[in-house]
Formats: sequence, structure tokens, C-alpha cells
Amino acid sequence: MSKPPSHIMPSPNTLNKNSDVLPADQECMTAASRANVDSFIVMEVMNQAAKLEKAGHSIIHMEVGQPGTSAPQPARKAAAEALGQDPLGYTVAAGLPELRQRIAQHYANQYGVNVDAERIIVTTGSSAGFVLTFLAVFEAGTKVGLPVPGYPCYRQILKALGQTEVPIRTDAASRWMPTVEAIAQAKAEHDIAGVLIASPANPTGTMLSPERLDDICQYCRVNGLWFISDEIYHGLTYGRDAVTALGNSNTTANENVVIINSFSKYFSMTGWRIGWVVVPTQLIGTFERLQQNLYISPPTISQVAALAAFDGTEELEANRSVYAHNREILLQGLKDTGFSKSVPADGAFYLYCDVSDWCSDSLALSTQVLHEAHVAITPGIDFDKHEGHRYVRFSYARSTADIEKGILRLQHWWASQTART
Amino acid sequence: MSKPPSHIMPSPNTLNKNSDVLPADQECMTAASRANVDSFIVMEVMNQAAKLEKAGHSIIHMEVGQPGTSAPQPARKAAAEALGQDPLGYTVAAGLPELRQRIAQHYANQYGVNVDAERIIVTTGSSAGFVLTFLAVFEAGTKVGLPVPGYPCYRQILKALGQTEVPIRTDAASRWMPTVEAIAQAKAEHDIAGVLIASPANPTGTMLSPERLDDICQYCRVNGLWFISDEIYHGLTYGRDAVTALGNSNTTANENVVIINSFSKYFSMTGWRIGWVVVPTQLIGTFERLQQNLYISPPTISQVAALAAFDGTEELEANRSVYAHNREILLQGLKDTGFSKSVPADGAFYLYCDVSDWCSDSLALSTQVLHEAHVAITPGIDFDKHEGHRYVRFSYARSTADIEKGILRLQHWWASQTART
Repeated sequence: MSKPPSHIMPSPNTLNKNSDVLPADQECMTAASRANVDSFIVMEVMNQAAKLEKAGHSIIHMEVGQPGTSAPQPARKAAAEALGQDPLGYTVAAGLPELRQRIAQHYANQYGVNVDAERIIVTTGSSAGFVLTFLAVFEAGTKVGLPVPGYPCYRQILKALGQTEVPIRTDAASRWMPTVEAIAQAKAEHDIAGVLIASPANPTGTMLSPERLDDICQYCRVNGLWFISDEIYHGLTYGRDAVTALGNSNTTANENVVIINSFSKYFSMTGWRIGWVVVPTQLIGTFERLQQNLYISPPTISQVAALAAFDGTEELEANRSVYAHNREILLQGLKDTGFSKSVPADGAFYLYCDVSDWCSDSLALSTQVLHEAHVAITPGIDFDKHEGHRYVRFSYARSTADIEKGILRLQHWWASQTART
Repeated sequence: MSKPPSHIMPSPNTLNKNSDVLPADQECMTAASRANVDSFIVMEVMNQAAKLEKAGHSIIHMEVGQPGTSAPQPARKAAAEALGQDPLGYTVAAGLPELRQRIAQHYANQYGVNVDAERIIVTTGSSAGFVLTFLAVFEAGTKVGLPVPGYPCYRQILKALGQTEVPIRTDAASRWMPTVEAIAQAKAEHDIAGVLIASPANPTGTMLSPERLDDICQYCRVNGLWFISDEIYHGLTYGRDAVTALGNSNTTANENVVIINSFSKYFSMTGWRIGWVVVPTQLIGTFERLQQNLYISPPTISQVAALAAFDGTEELEANRSVYAHNREILLQGLKDTGFSKSVPADGAFYLYCDVSDWCSDSLALSTQVLHEAHVAITPGIDFDKHEGHRYVRFSYARSTADIEKGILRLQHWWASQTART
């Protein structure tokens, strides 16, 4: 494959226009080292895409990890009504009691699991769920196992909070999910205090089978490890349903488990910043107090909308059908291109493609594809610092028309590449 | 004064119904020690007030630190419009560019200060402003000077993030604001890396004079201390206007200053969870990356509403007139009661009253007043662990009718107390 011209290859040093490096004579007031977290490389792709759009080009967005749809109609209606009649002051720290109750009901309906509503803490998106959970269960300096590739914020939040990531490498052969053996090895070698797993996962869209999830839960329980289950992509699956790590909701079995979830993906409410955690009984007070002090309460209008979002199932299932269709045509359409090597995802709205047969720098590749094919995709390096240069992520969360257009462009671009070499 | 019956005096041990203490046989999965932050005692007062209301009693709420009014009409209108036409996805991490621009404009209009909009980061309330700032500028283990009495979340957030509060005691004689000498002493004795000051302050409502603020700013600048200025109560002043610690906005002079502000108080938007920070140029990238990882972006509908809130000045100034009037009648009405000893506040919507002449336990007193006079007030111990038992805080953020009713009840109650002794 031909190399892209050098001017479109950002070097890591130019990715942040606002440098934190001060001239030598101003050395005192600098950022704390713990604050030195990475920015998302995908943001650079998005910035470049925005520039191209400003210059009049049409760009197909397959880099963005969020639905293009709005919150379901009942949610928007409830928010509009609240605007007219509610002062929308703070709520109690743990969230509106009726919303906690409704989420508990969701566990009964969706998984057949009984969860006490007291165990549900409404959060300002899953982002707050991670911050609260890491603070609640891990001391400073604690080591936490994170499957790689994975969502970059996990390790950045851990770093900012003074905790340490222990990467647990996964591969396509194990469907990008950690094995019990790999977790046990991380425990033996690094004394990890817990492990965080998302299933379905970002960036791979793959899922743990119920049996593998059960084995990991049991290993963690027996060995006194915290098991943090990121279930944000539950509801967005295309074969079997996802299974919650709450298992049978037996309280003793759950005492080492924290569930993190959100209204962002299935419920199509990213910008509302609203989610929840399910915490073990012995930690309810800890989470409430941390939330009170660090967040006061989640956004009130978002809580009102989230409660009503449960009545938007028809619309949300229609969204899911679109993703399912997009997934099919994407898998099919990429077949005869350089992006054909992926594990067909069980859920979420991502495909993670191995491009190492023909390219060794996925950031340069993404930049080239953006500028030549006008399709924005995400280089794998956000999700995996060491091997991510071999992978790119496709998101199929937008409209089917967009996905179809994107595939055509990619096929055309691929044909032009092979013709050139 | 007569002691309240013991059953209405909660002991500290009973304040959290969800204990984190596990039976001895379940000792492994407990909360991290850093997560062991205090709950707000005021919440207990509020819970008891709610119980009394449920039992049919009318309670006057002078404990709540938030306006009873809603966001101004233009803000609600903009939110309603966005609900109909915007998918309300994530925004860029630093917030909507037009909102950052409008906040910069606010500094020009309000203070005559030029601030580059790039230096403004929109946050999920001032709560996020504190978390981001403490992470951005203080290493783990750093000591930070906090005036006492003060807003309890400051020290709790510091604790959760592994930093240490160095209390800087203030008193009524210095209008509850720290002196340069006291800050210098904290620096000499504890090597503090910075100081956080709110002016107007919670719980006292007092303000630094421009000269004292300037002296403190200069001391911090010369001595390499971070100066974090909590300006959340700006706009709510009843004599002279508050002055921002940005000073003349000379960038060099500002390189050690972080401003924290919010739409919660003056703009009457508590539950929207929307605020902002003004950061030194060399930290813009750090704040952006921290926000990206820990929050993704502030709630989108709240950003849209906040932008329009600047057009609601007439309504907001009417709110302020109500507070100003409430303040006058409260100061007047408490004159011949046991709550007459306070520094008349310059701003915010609080009075902090010394009750030590006749009571040694402000928590017991608040409980007694709640049960006997049906007025909810806040004991000082949330704001000052050591001396707070001598003080109570009155909030006058609600309607004038409520304040008038509350004063009558307190006067009547006080008369009954003095009759009894």
C-alpha cells in the first residue's frame, strides 16, 4: 500500500494544540503528574474530519461511538413537561427513588433477577460510575486488571485516581475476552485487587459466553477479587442476549461485584449524561456519600427523561434493528477489501479489523482513508497502545444510508490502492 | 435553655442507615479507606423534616442551599427547543464553543476583564470543577489550605483524591475570611501547595474586600501557591459587587489561578449540573483531557440552557431582589432571639449565627428547632468539625412568605424557651 503524504500524518507531539510545557522561566505552576492522561487519538481524526467538512467535503462518520438518534420520544416528552412545571433542583444523591425502582424493575424484566432498588445508585453517565467505583473499592496504588484492547478511559481514570492498570492481553482467538487463566496470572504476578470487563466490549463488540462469565465471576468471588462489569452495551446484541454479572442476585454472591451501566447506548441518550451502578449492599452508604460530595446528584432533567425512556422500547428496538442491518451489510461489504479480517461482533456497534497484513500504522491508515476515501474510522491505538497500530475500529451506529455510502467509498478506495501497487 | 429529648438527638453512629461495617466473617470486600468520606449532617435534618411533612406538619425550609426558583425562562425555552430538534449527543469535551464564548463575554460585561474563551472549560457543575482542578494541579499527598468554616465538599473531595486539607481558621472578627498571615503560616508550617477561597462564602455569606483579595492573590503568586477561587455566589451580593480573582486578566498574573463558577446559584440552575472553570493557559490541554476521560462532556441540554440563561437577567435580578429583601427581614426578625449574633452577610443567601451564649450543641439545637418550631436550619458542624457546634446556618433562598413565616415561628419558639428558663 502506498504511504500517505507526510503532511497528513500527525506526530504524537502535535496532537494537542495546547501544550502543557512552559518556558523554562515559568516552571513552577505546571500540571500535576497524575493529570498527565492521554487524549483520545480519535479526537484528532474527528478534528481533521471537521476541517474537511468545513472545506466542503462530505465525510461518512464511522469513527463515532454514539447513536445518531435522539432519546426516545417518551423521554423527550417527560423532559419537556418537567421544564414547564418542575424547578429542577438537586435530587437526593442516589437519584430519584422512582428511577431507582424502575431500574430494579428492568433487572427483573430483562434478566429475571431480583435487585433491591436500594442497591441502585443513579450516576452522571457511566463515567461517574467508574470514578465512584474506583474510589469506593480501590485504595490509592491498587492494581486493577484491564483487558486489552479496551475503552481508554478505564486506564486514564485509574491513573488520575492514583491506581495502576495491569493489562490483560486478549486476542481474536479468545473472542477478545480474558480467560480465567489470564486473570489468575495477573493476580499471581501483580496482585491485582480486581478486574473490569465490558461485555459486549468496545472496540471489539464481542461478548463473554454465559459460561465464561460465570467462570470469571466464580474465580473472582473465591479469590477475593472485585469484579467490575461494564454492561453499557447490554440491549445492543444481535444473537443471544447479554447476561448480567449479577447472576442470580444472591447477595452473598454479589458482594464483590459492581455493575456499571448507562442510558447512553441502548437508550440513545449519550449527551444526557445519565447512567447507574448496582452496588453490593455493604457499599450503598459509601457510594451515596461519595456521590453527595463529588457530584451532589445526577442532572435532574436527565433523571426524569431516563425514567420515561423505559417506555420507548418500540423506538429503541427499531434502532437496534438498524444496527443489526448495518452490521450485516458492513461485514458483507468489507469482504473483498483490506478490512475483512475481524471477529463478527455479538453486540455494541463496532467491528475491530486486523489490517496488519498490509499496513503497520493504523493512525496513518485512518488519516489516509479520511483524506482519500472521506470515511472517518478509528485507529486501534486508543484501545491498545502496543498492538493497536495493527487494528482499526468501525462504528456502525449511524444510519444505514451512511453505512452503505461508506462501504462504497471504502471499496472504491481499496480498488484504487490495489491498482496502484 | 432546655435540652431536647434524647430520642431526637441523632448520634453520629446512627446517621447512616447503610453501615459499611460488615460482620467479621465478611471482611474482605469492604470500601477503600479513601472512600470513607463524611455524609452531610444537613441531610439528616432534611430527612427528619421530610418525615415530619409526611406526618402532616408544615415545615419552613431554611436549611436548603438552593433557590426555590427554576432556571430563567429563556433557558427553559432553549432547552425545550433543543428537545425537539437536536439529538443531544456528546459535545466536545471543553463544552460548546458558543457557550465558552458567551462566558468569556460575561467576564467582559460583569468585571471588565478580557478572558480568552479557550481558557474557559464548561463543567458538570462546580462539583466537577473541583474534581478537575484538584486533579490537574495537586499531586497525591499534596496539602491544600481551606478556610474554616467552609463548604464541606472541598475537604471530602480532597480526601477521596488522596490529598490533605490544612484548615485555616477564620473568625467573625476577620469577616470569616483568611488573612495573608494565616495563609503564610499554613505555608510555613505545612508547606501547602495552594489555597481555596470562596467569596462570597458558604456558610457565612461574607466576602473578601477587593484589597484583601488582591493581597492574597499577590502573596500566592509571589510564593508559588495555587489560588483556587470559588466564585459560585458571584452575582448574589447586596452591597458592592464581588471581584473576580482573575484580576486584570494579565496572563502571567493568572498562571497560578483557577476560577470555579457555576450556573447553580445566581442563574438558579442547581439540578442542571452545569458550571465552568477559567484555567491558566498552560493547563487548558490538561483540563480538556481530564474532562474527556472522567466526564466525556457536560450534559448537552444543560449547556444549551446555560447559554440562553444569560438572556434571563431581568428574572434573575428579580430573584436577587427577593434574596436582598429576605436578608433584611431575617436580620431584623432574628434581632431579639437567640440567633441575633451574626456577621451581616455581603452575599450568597446565608447567615451564620453564633449560638454559643446559650447552647453548646448546634446539632441538638437544630433538631429541637425542627421538632418544636417546625423550622429546618443547618447545624454548623458540616462546615466546621471543631467549632461548628457553636453555630447554625440560615438560608434565605426561598420565598419571602416562607422567610416571614419562619421568623414568626422562631420568635414564638424563642419566647417559649425564655419563658421556660
